[in-house]
Amino acid sequence: MKTEKDKNIPYKIYLKEDEIPTQWYNVRADMKNKPAPLLNPGTLEPMKAEELYGVFCEELVKQELDNETPYIDIPGEIVSFYKMYRPSPLVRAYCLEEKLQTPAKIYYKFEGNNTSGSHKLNSAIAQAYYAKKQGLKGVTTETGAGQWGTALSMACSYFGLDCKVYMVKVSYEQKPFRREVMRTYGASVTPSPSTETEVGKKILSEHPGTTGSLGCAISEAVEKAVTSEGYRYVLGSVLNQVLLHQSVIGLETKKALDKYGIKPDIIIGCAGGGSNLGGLISPFMGEKLRGEADYRIIAVEPASCPSFTRGRYAYDFCDTGKVCPLAKMYTLGCDFIPAPNHAGGLRYHGMSSILSQLYDDKYMEAVSVSQTSVFEAAEEFARIEGILPAPESSHAIKVAIDEALKCKETGEEKNIVFGLTGTGYFDMVAYEKFHDGLMENYVPTDEELNESLAKLPEVK
Amino acid sequence: MKTEKDKNIPYKIYLKEDEIPTQWYNVRADMKNKPAPLLNPGTLEPMKAEELYGVFCEELVKQELDNETPYIDIPGEIVSFYKMYRPSPLVRAYCLEEKLQTPAKIYYKFEGNNTSGSHKLNSAIAQAYYAKKQGLKGVTTETGAGQWGTALSMACSYFGLDCKVYMVKVSYEQKPFRREVMRTYGASVTPSPSTETEVGKKILSEHPGTTGSLGCAISEAVEKAVTSEGYRYVLGSVLNQVLLHQSVIGLETKKALDKYGIKPDIIIGCAGGGSNLGGLISPFMGEKLRGEADYRIIAVEPASCPSFTRGRYAYDFCDTGKVCPLAKMYTLGCDFIPAPNHAGGLRYHGMSSILSQLYDDKYMEAVSVSQTSVFEAAEEFARIEGILPAPESSHAIKVAIDEALKCKETGEEKNIVFGLTGTGYFDMVAYEKFHDGLMENYVPTDEELNESLAKLPEVK
Repeated sequence: MKTEKDKNIPYKIYLKEDEIPTQWYNVRADMKNKPAPLLNPGTLEPMKAEELYGVFCEELVKQELDNETPYIDIPGEIVSFYKMYRPSPLVRAYCLEEKLQTPAKIYYKFEGNNTSGSHKLNSAIAQAYYAKKQGLKGVTTETGAGQWGTALSMACSYFGLDCKVYMVKVSYEQKPFRREVMRTYGASVTPSPSTETEVGKKILSEHPGTTGSLGCAISEAVEKAVTSEGYRYVLGSVLNQVLLHQSVIGLETKKALDKYGIKPDIIIGCAGGGSNLGGLISPFMGEKLRGEADYRIIAVEPASCPSFTRGRYAYDFCDTGKVCPLAKMYTLGCDFIPAPNHAGGLRYHGMSSILSQLYDDKYMEAVSVSQTSVFEAAEEFARIEGILPAPESSHAIKVAIDEALKCKETGEEKNIVFGLTGTGYFDMVAYEKFHDGLMENYVPTDEELNESLAKLPEVK
Repeated sequence: MKTEKDKNIPYKIYLKEDEIPTQWYNVRADMKNKPAPLLNPGTLEPMKAEELYGVFCEELVKQELDNETPYIDIPGEIVSFYKMYRPSPLVRAYCLEEKLQTPAKIYYKFEGNNTSGSHKLNSAIAQAYYAKKQGLKGVTTETGAGQWGTALSMACSYFGLDCKVYMVKVSYEQKPFRREVMRTYGASVTPSPSTETEVGKKILSEHPGTTGSLGCAISEAVEKAVTSEGYRYVLGSVLNQVLLHQSVIGLETKKALDKYGIKPDIIIGCAGGGSNLGGLISPFMGEKLRGEADYRIIAVEPASCPSFTRGRYAYDFCDTGKVCPLAKMYTLGCDFIPAPNHAGGLRYHGMSSILSQLYDDKYMEAVSVSQTSVFEAAEEFARIEGILPAPESSHAIKVAIDEALKCKETGEEKNIVFGLTGTGYFDMVAYEKFHDGLMENYVPTDEELNESLAKLPEVK
């Protein structure tokens, strides 16, 4: 036996099917300082529901703006869909603990065991459901690495909705297999920037030969939605509604831990736009906000795209084309694009308004990690725990290992919980670079950041 | 709700961790007509254990030759490893039933939720364990599509064994990501035929420019094993030992069905070398052999490589280089290579001796299906059940759907169980061909088959 097992705790804690949450938890209800409202890009006034209805589905707008209701019912059709791949396992990392020789107890919530390969499906199915309910023909979106696009394609296929995905051109070319999965689910996938939209044409004329960015693909998807009859735009991260849907991750995690009387000391999640981290921590953060319990909560971001650790808490555009509402968030500036050699995902310039407010209020910490250290952790984890992690998820693995090694020094038996958001089957080009010693660590200089931060819009 | 759910049966039936089998079931013990013995390629006499020790690990040789012991203990270390990804779910395909509007009840045992992406890990970890226990340095093997090579790499990494994989050249070139996953687990991967072995050199000189075959890669891996100090050869299918290890699939399936009082009417599995099918059906076949129950059992093979439905039951070489022992099996002749446009896996020229004997004794049926019909079923399944299936597994899906549609006509509420052996994340090139309408159906002519069958060795 390589591992010494706690008598009562299995390798994988599975909840029963009827223990899947039937309500999402809205952490905003427990926040004293609410996340700042979205602003109209023209007037810089807070967006009203009616103004958002042209872009987003109505029910989703309501969820976006609802800072008060703590629990929101999950419609039965969504719960049914969740049953196809949920509850997801909470895994006790016995093998990793043994390998590290740490007294810490490590748990991870594994969201990769579905065909989209990540947690993104939790929100995709909700957004597709409300689009269908509103009688829409379809939805538009952007995707970078492709996890969100894949998830949305699956969700739209389930409800018979059309799905138009703008995929960052460099990913479109480097990840033909992701594109092909989306096609399997009937989605149309267009490399961005494209000539299908005005904003795409404009970007192409200003930057011929550009390989695209997430912010630019967002602009195209939004334009397509608002100019097409029966379409709305959907987004896989950053938004309040997305964190609401992703609360199923945290609710299941908490229920599984509670079953075995385990109280986490440290909760760790990777953070790009914040969808996974926000979902994982939500019920724990709720307890913390209500003063019922305390947890150390750590957001992990790439050193090459460090919005929490080196960004500014300010209003910024959510997209490059500046057609979207402004959000108050930790941001590197909407023109910031991580270096092309950045392979580890989490490349959005901003961060969820909810998490930004919580971070600003010191309810959580953030650290940034270098790309090669992330891939070292990923490979170690793959070999020991038998799951090939997504580069994004591996940011959390890296810090979980670091914290477990600290426990080894101090002898503390801390309970460490982290989010393993997805699998890396479509990221083998990055792994190959790492194996071949061709992966570099890029960290933006202060000058670069100052340049893009200097362009932040002025909002009183 | 899209699906009407049976009150008591969840979407996914998960056994508890302590319900993972602790013994493998050896179906040979219940066979009146035992599978024919392996023959020495030089003398054509039955192989004795000592003769096999140079090629295979000793404990595995014993398992290979044991036709009598019905239950064989699974070592604790292997059970521990199984706990990292087992028990695998038995899924009730509510959504598929609803879509087909069939009164049939469809279940599938899903073996794809581990990083190797298939059931192959069940035997890989066993073979690596016995190699480690024997004090070996490492093992050699071949891989075609890459599932077996990936599984073995994971298993060897777990036990700290060296792993040398000969990968059919055409796959090596077309599936760089599979190769990269193996590298992540520390395996060395060589395109076959190579100049590393005498048999590889010989094949290259006779067929310059060949893209390789499974039979040829086997020859290279065996040569490497017997000429390297501290190495043995391991194989992912066909062998009796592999079917023994894979019995965990069937044992878990039966236990899960028994829990809910479900008796399958039809059991369906895809068949290449027979590892999945043999494992899935084993405890059911045991009951059938003992006269305790009856089940319809269907092997599904590709029309382009139809060993059961168009092959001959005869002694043949297991490899192209004719260095391996001979096995009595349904075979197309060891020189048979499926057409290069065959994308659906299951491309081995022969079939497990156990299954061949059972088929010859009429304990099971076999059907062959065309490639495009398999991909149609695969895409339908992906959209409805949310799992992107491996092309191999999709052969079983195709026939499960066919049988469910027959039930729709007759109104019979049959219980259909099939094996969903793995996921198709590394098969997107084939899916792309299918989407682009470039996939062809190739069926060998009688002349072609007769030509390769005419070369079968003469054995009295």
